[in-house]
Amino acid sequence: MLSYSFANIGSESLYVHLYSCIKNDILKGKIAAGLKLPSKRSFAKNLGISVITVENAYAQLIAEGFIYSIPKKGYFVSDIETVEGKEKIKSAIGDKKAAKYYADLVSNSVLHTLFPFATWAKLLREVILEKSEELMTVPPCSGVLELREAIAEHLYQFKGIRAEPAQIIIGAGTEYLYSLIIKLMGYDKVFAAEEPGYGKISKIYKSSNVVCKHINMDKKGVVPQEIVSSNADVLHISPSHHFPTGTVMPVSRRYELLSWVTGSKYRYIIEDDFDSEFRFSGRAIPPIKELDVMDRVIYMNTFTKSLAPTIRISYMVLPAALAEKYYGELGFYSCTVSNFEQYTLEKFISNGHFENHINRMRRYYKTVRDSFIHAIKNNEALKNAVIEEEDAGLHFTLRVDTDMTDTELKKAFLRNGIRVTCLSDYYVNRENAPKSVIVINYSNLEPEKTDHVVERIADSIKISSKIQ
Amino acid sequence: MLSYSFANIGSESLYVHLYSCIKNDILKGKIAAGLKLPSKRSFAKNLGISVITVENAYAQLIAEGFIYSIPKKGYFVSDIETVEGKEKIKSAIGDKKAAKYYADLVSNSVLHTLFPFATWAKLLREVILEKSEELMTVPPCSGVLELREAIAEHLYQFKGIRAEPAQIIIGAGTEYLYSLIIKLMGYDKVFAAEEPGYGKISKIYKSSNVVCKHINMDKKGVVPQEIVSSNADVLHISPSHHFPTGTVMPVSRRYELLSWVTGSKYRYIIEDDFDSEFRFSGRAIPPIKELDVMDRVIYMNTFTKSLAPTIRISYMVLPAALAEKYYGELGFYSCTVSNFEQYTLEKFISNGHFENHINRMRRYYKTVRDSFIHAIKNNEALKNAVIEEEDAGLHFTLRVDTDMTDTELKKAFLRNGIRVTCLSDYYVNRENAPKSVIVINYSNLEPEKTDHVVERIADSIKISSKIQ
Repeated sequence: MLSYSFANIGSESLYVHLYSCIKNDILKGKIAAGLKLPSKRSFAKNLGISVITVENAYAQLIAEGFIYSIPKKGYFVSDIETVEGKEKIKSAIGDKKAAKYYADLVSNSVLHTLFPFATWAKLLREVILEKSEELMTVPPCSGVLELREAIAEHLYQFKGIRAEPAQIIIGAGTEYLYSLIIKLMGYDKVFAAEEPGYGKISKIYKSSNVVCKHINMDKKGVVPQEIVSSNADVLHISPSHHFPTGTVMPVSRRYELLSWVTGSKYRYIIEDDFDSEFRFSGRAIPPIKELDVMDRVIYMNTFTKSLAPTIRISYMVLPAALAEKYYGELGFYSCTVSNFEQYTLEKFISNGHFENHINRMRRYYKTVRDSFIHAIKNNEALKNAVIEEEDAGLHFTLRVDTDMTDTELKKAFLRNGIRVTCLSDYYVNRENAPKSVIVINYSNLEPEKTDHVVERIADSIKISSKIQ
Repeated sequence: MLSYSFANIGSESLYVHLYSCIKNDILKGKIAAGLKLPSKRSFAKNLGISVITVENAYAQLIAEGFIYSIPKKGYFVSDIETVEGKEKIKSAIGDKKAAKYYADLVSNSVLHTLFPFATWAKLLREVILEKSEELMTVPPCSGVLELREAIAEHLYQFKGIRAEPAQIIIGAGTEYLYSLIIKLMGYDKVFAAEEPGYGKISKIYKSSNVVCKHINMDKKGVVPQEIVSSNADVLHISPSHHFPTGTVMPVSRRYELLSWVTGSKYRYIIEDDFDSEFRFSGRAIPPIKELDVMDRVIYMNTFTKSLAPTIRISYMVLPAALAEKYYGELGFYSCTVSNFEQYTLEKFISNGHFENHINRMRRYYKTVRDSFIHAIKNNEALKNAVIEEEDAGLHFTLRVDTDMTDTELKKAFLRNGIRVTCLSDYYVNRENAPKSVIVINYSNLEPEKTDHVVERIADSIKISSKIQ
């Protein structure tokens, strides 16, 4: 039996109140279409109101189409159209239907078995016990000082980058930091991204109403002449390990870009160093920021790759001049990351857990990568496939021998339960894109699946022609 | 004695390595200016390298000005200019000097004793134990479904707002959500904010390169005629409890605004309901969103006020048409809130803790407010002061009787250890602003201090003329 309270209804009449309660429950789907409502008499008795009140409320609901009556049977809830509207929005975002794949080689999700839950929970508990006052104190716009100090120390130790904590700005993901950079640079500036590249970067610039050009890459990275002719002011690149090609920019090209950036006082480079932690062999090439004596490079990195994609903490190092401008002009923006997680991450870094975690992840992913590549090389059907990678990052590319278009290729993979993207997906100008190159992101792959995944990859490809 | 490792230095020569190590430590401030460096001989012995290596490194450092030698005395660290640069950035943001007040009646920080740390910690622990897989899974752009469902239920129960979880967008603070709304509406739209108002709102619009007009308020809220003549497309208001005036918009004005918004299909209202939880007496006026049958109101609320300013979780309810546009055009933006906190908040709301917390906070703040107002009314020196408030929110205004300008007034308060703002601070056009009206935000005030604070307030004001 439906039950509603008639206390505190103010000046509203009883029947209007009852009518609203029932209407809301119908609209909300709490009372399903087709359901029989209580009889007027029993409802009135139950609610302690008069039968006439229930009658008036039912009459109003009938008039508005929320319920209907069948003589001798009673009152029933209508199948209202809002239900349709609801389903429409729901299906638009797929809240209901999260597709499942045998292997998702696109997602940046991380296997939950890799996250150091016990350590994280322990540190969180410590933070809550020790820092109740700090946890409730609004931090500077750039974030909690202790975390910025820990990051400064980490940057110096592991990347050779010297940065004052005041130059480090913490934000809820690099996407948020890009939007801060746009505000800092000005909406009249021309931004430039890599072609091919991580599609989100140019989408973010465009959705923020600034011009974003695309600079073609050669084997060394973005082509300097093209940067010049694009009239770009701000160049956004990932020199340590480009996604998706895997290109590592040699030092000579880095100097060429530094030479470009110092050619005008309005130019800046954004060095997006998102997965440089995952270098499996050889010495890491120092970041451009380390060579940046003129202080014109914004260095950016994120813990979403190295720790978890669902802990939204990223940071950037602003050149001193931009840092001053940031505090002066944008300092009113609140830091977007929770204090709880900032203090926990500070402990995680300062106590050496972050370094251990990275080392463990690196070893783990090296094993996955090695067994993946080993399985590909030992698969007869893939003997003409070409692996391109640079001993780094959490992805590699695989050029396969097929007549299928990239769209057909992806469909063939999907039929085998494998979700992949192709290199051509990362080009704005698809006509120039190499065909038949699959991008394999293994950050989310259970290691015991590699052999099966490679078999399914081989099975998906119709062997028909030699590789060009 | 300085100590450096010479393992893994690759192809770098020993002296270059030593030189870099020392240089970096000087630049980083680890070796202070004026410090005497070890003698070449003892340093060489200690590091297990030859004296000539140390000599070469020192020579290079001298050549570059990082160190200097005093004959017969030794080598000393120079006072390098970068130190100056560092201090400049540091002081720009006040990382070093967080001012302390006897009472800060401006800050939105919350007393740490009010936050339910034990419950929050317990729920966090449960989430970590139960949801390790979900915690590592990237949620939809709008946030974790379970949290959006809990918010939908809460909105229905406490505000009478019906919203599908798909219409609810979770973001790291309302400031972030404003920027999403701008992208959704378009950069060509004219936004309008209240005059007076929370200064950040117009700052955010302006820093995002969109036009922001200011609409004067009368006793009922923003003046409809002024909205029309401003050519605004999007009106940003806080009808439940305006900051800083405390105005609660009557229903008649709400209908006037709804009439305006339906006058063109490009118009929208942003209903910023940031502190409506804190209504101490009387019935809360329903949000405009509840009256919004044409689905043209974006309802927005935040847990930064009701829970903690340092847990960055806010949400908005998008009209169905805007929700579809959002998923279609901006769905590539990642949700900015950590999964850990989204799942914890979901439990906090669903298990009834949020409701209990709000009730406890409301009772607590009512006590603070009552004792504050009681002390003012009983202070002889403040007998002409006028309190304006609407039994709601976490602030009230106090019109005082003084010849001082507002700037002098704030200085006089500061000398007594009290930080306040004046009503005039919230006007873009300060000439129109009422003078001598102090805005008192007591969200951060220890209750045992109220009497002393009122004494200090009285003491700060030179009584010189009757209130106009």
